Formats: sequence, C-alpha cells, structure tokens
Amino acid sequence: MNEIIDLLQRHRSIRKFTNEPVSTEQREAILKAAQAASTSSNMQAYSVIHVSDAGLKNQLAELAGNQAYVSECPLFLVWCADLHRYAEAAHRHGDTPITGNAENLIIATVEAALAAQNAAVAAESLGLGVCYIGGLRNKPAEVSELLGLPQLVYPVFGMCIGMPDQEPLLRPRLPLEAVYHENRYTPNQAAVESYDETIRDYMKERTGGSTDTTWSKEMAAKALRPRKHMKAFLSRQGYEVE
Amino acid sequence: MNEIIDLLQRHRSIRKFTNEPVSTEQREAILKAAQAASTSSNMQAYSVIHVSDAGLKNQLAELAGNQAYVSECPLFLVWCADLHRYAEAAHRHGDTPITGNAENLIIATVEAALAAQNAAVAAESLGLGVCYIGGLRNKPAEVSELLGLPQLVYPVFGMCIGMPDQEPLLRPRLPLEAVYHENRYTPNQAAVESYDETIRDYMKERTGGSTDTTWSKEMAAKALRPRKHMKAFLSRQGYEVE
Repeated sequence: MNEIIDLLQRHRSIRKFTNEPVSTEQREAILKAAQAASTSSNMQAYSVIHVSDAGLKNQLAELAGNQAYVSECPLFLVWCADLHRYAEAAHRHGDTPITGNAENLIIATVEAALAAQNAAVAAESLGLGVCYIGGLRNKPAEVSELLGLPQLVYPVFGMCIGMPDQEPLLRPRLPLEAVYHENRYTPNQAAVESYDETIRDYMKERTGGSTDTTWSKEMAAKALRPRKHMKAFLSRQGYEVE
Repeated sequence: MNEIIDLLQRHRSIRKFTNEPVSTEQREAILKAAQAASTSSNMQAYSVIHVSDAGLKNQLAELAGNQAYVSECPLFLVWCADLHRYAEAAHRHGDTPITGNAENLIIATVEAALAAQNAAVAAESLGLGVCYIGGLRNKPAEVSELLGLPQLVYPVFGMCIGMPDQEPLLRPRLPLEAVYHENRYTPNQAAVESYDETIRDYMKERTGGSTDTTWSKEMAAKALRPRKHMKAFLSRQGYEVE
C-alpha cells in the first residue's frame, strides 16, 4: 500500500551480519525514533543500554544461551523496563512510594517494547537487520548484575542490529482471522489448523525436508521450556507484582 | 535521515478525528503490518479486537474514564495479550499446563505492544493519526467481560485510529542521554533537570501560561494514581504471575 507498510510486512529476523559498523549518526537516528514512541502519561519508563564492550558482549551472548550473534553484531542494545528514573523524579516532589506493582510492570514493559519496535523499524529503514534477544531472560539476574541495573529496572530483551549477511525465508504468520476479532473474542480453530499446515510446509522447505512439525506441535514443545525464575527475579528487582 | 525515520520522529498522539472512515483495505494493511512484528518463538501471543459496534464503543469510552475519542474515532482496536490460543494449541499435543506465570505475562504483553506499534506506524504512514488508550486498564474486568475475553487473555491497551482533525504540539522527550547508557546503567540527574525546564516551557506554551509544572512534578502527581487492582484482575484472567 506504500513503502513503509511494505517495509513492515517484509520484516524477518537477521542473525548474521557483515562487519560493517553502524555509524553514530545511524545509532542516534534509531534511538531518537525510539524515543518518539507513545508513552503513558509521558513516563518514558524505559532505558536502553548500548553494549559496546567486546568482553561484555561475549558474556551476554553466553548468558543468552550461547547466541553468537549477540557478540558478533555491530550494535547490541539491551532494552530495559525502567521505573527507577520515574521513582527518583517522583520522590523529589512527593512522598508517595513508587512500587513495582503489576500495573507499573505492565507500563514499563510496554514502554520498552514500543520504543524498541520503533528502533527496529528505523534500523530496517536504513537497510539494517535486527533480531530481538528474549534469551537475556534466561539469566536475568546475571545480566542485571553485569549491566549495573538498579532497583525497578529489568532487561526485557536485547536487540542485535547490523548489515544483514543472510536472506532468511519470510516466516508465515497466523492467518489474520486467527488473531483478529470483531466486537467479541472468538477463537478460530479452523484458522489455526490451516496455519499448522502452512508451518509444516515452511519447516520442510527451511530444513530440506528433515523437519515435520506444525505450529501447534511447536507450541507444545515450547511449553516444556518455561522460564519459571522470572517472578523471583522481578521481585529481586523491586517488582512485587502486587 | 530518511522519510520513515522522519515519520517516526514526528509522532504525536491524536485525540480528535474527522468523520472520514478508515477503509477495509487500510485496516487490513495496518493489521498485516502488525502481524509482521517480531514474535518470541513464533508464539504470536496477542489478539486484536476491532470494536465496530457503536454501543460497545460508548461503553468502552466510559470505562476508559470518559474519553470521548474512544467512541468518536473511526477505528477502535483493543490490543490483548493472548496466551489462550497458545495454550489451546499446546494442549492438543502435550499435557504440560500453560500458566500465566511472570515470563508468559511478559511475553504476551510484549507481543501485543510490538504488533500494536507496527500498526501505529502503518496507520501514520497512511496519513492517519493514532492514540493509545491505557485507560482500558481502569476497569479491566468490565472491559474483558464486554469483549468476552477468555482465560489467559487481557486487554493491554486500546488504540484510536482515524484522520486527524487537530495538530497538537510535538511534546518534547527526555534528552537522549537520560534514557541511553553505554555498557552500564548510569543515572543522569542533570539531563532530567534540564528536561524539567523543557517541560515547564512546553506546558506554559500549551496552556497559554496557566500551568507551571515540570516533568518530575508530573511524575509525583502520577504516583498518586496507581491502578492497584491490576494484580487481582490479572489473577482473575489466569495470570498468576508466579
């Protein structure tokens, strides 16, 4: 429908990058785009940490489950939910304690995500590729320690950015009617079953025929790998989720 | 730096719309862009509810704190974190129970936000304006009841979309150095204090001189309005946050 919508719809995660650096000008344009995202009551309850130190990148790559592209990508960012700055500001003008309750957890998590997605779109508009790294939540306490995160700050995900050195297949999404509802939530089992077959075909093509799976089977496998430590970790960071 | 980054950096929330409808083609392009956003292990753990029924829009507008633009906007979407579809799929191929634990809450909240932000960018690329409606979390149980949300689905925020009928000032953001850190989290009090003055000037201009405030003061005021009900609500929806 236009060039921007084409760009959004063509998104795929990039996990292999050339050595070409991301310039300071590019990085700042990306981060200014991130800052322009919507924010709840202007809280801007996120922070972004640019990890430029090679040793630190290696440690984070290992903590994320040995994802080499974390250390190899030209620009690695860690997007954090951040109520620390908000709490510090509020404390200077009042004595209402700022708690990491469920609502504040949601606000800060959403703000990090909105800013990050603007950054992703901005990066892709410059011809760069990106990959979100949820794996930072494998070892969130260790990541927080390495980055010096204070109370009320937690790493939501990382993001690799760089010039793509691969052209992965576009992974098909659920049919629109599986995620779209009009006026009332209505599960659409037929759409999910149709998608199961789409993913079966996609995985066969991607693996040269060696993988026979469906979306539903992948979700059952995913359910075996919960990150059960997150509540305790969030509590440690001051998110009492209450 | 390019047209897309300009678009992102020019974002402002729109709360007044002309009567011009958003066409089905526009809506579908916006939603397809949303679907293309990154997703954790392909979970696609969100749903979007298009509220087209006028009576329902009025009820939601009231629940959101009498925000008239919710009922007046041509296209109103409710973005939901959705582990229900994932749980149903996983249950067909395994007996691992899917719980709304803290990690799953984060995944589903992030996925709703990433998809929504792509939708916002796509809409703005078509000349439309958008406004996020966090106010749906004022009365989340009532909103969930009205929309028929099952267990493991919760409304993260709404979104008004339509042709802008206002040109609000661009609200300045924190200086980049207040949200940006290199290698280690480092609070930047001077940047926040400088922003306090920026917001003082902005608010004076916006209110014709009648409001004298700063960002920090606004944050202290915001702290007096916590949505303390969210933990109980999330628990009702199956998010035990454990």
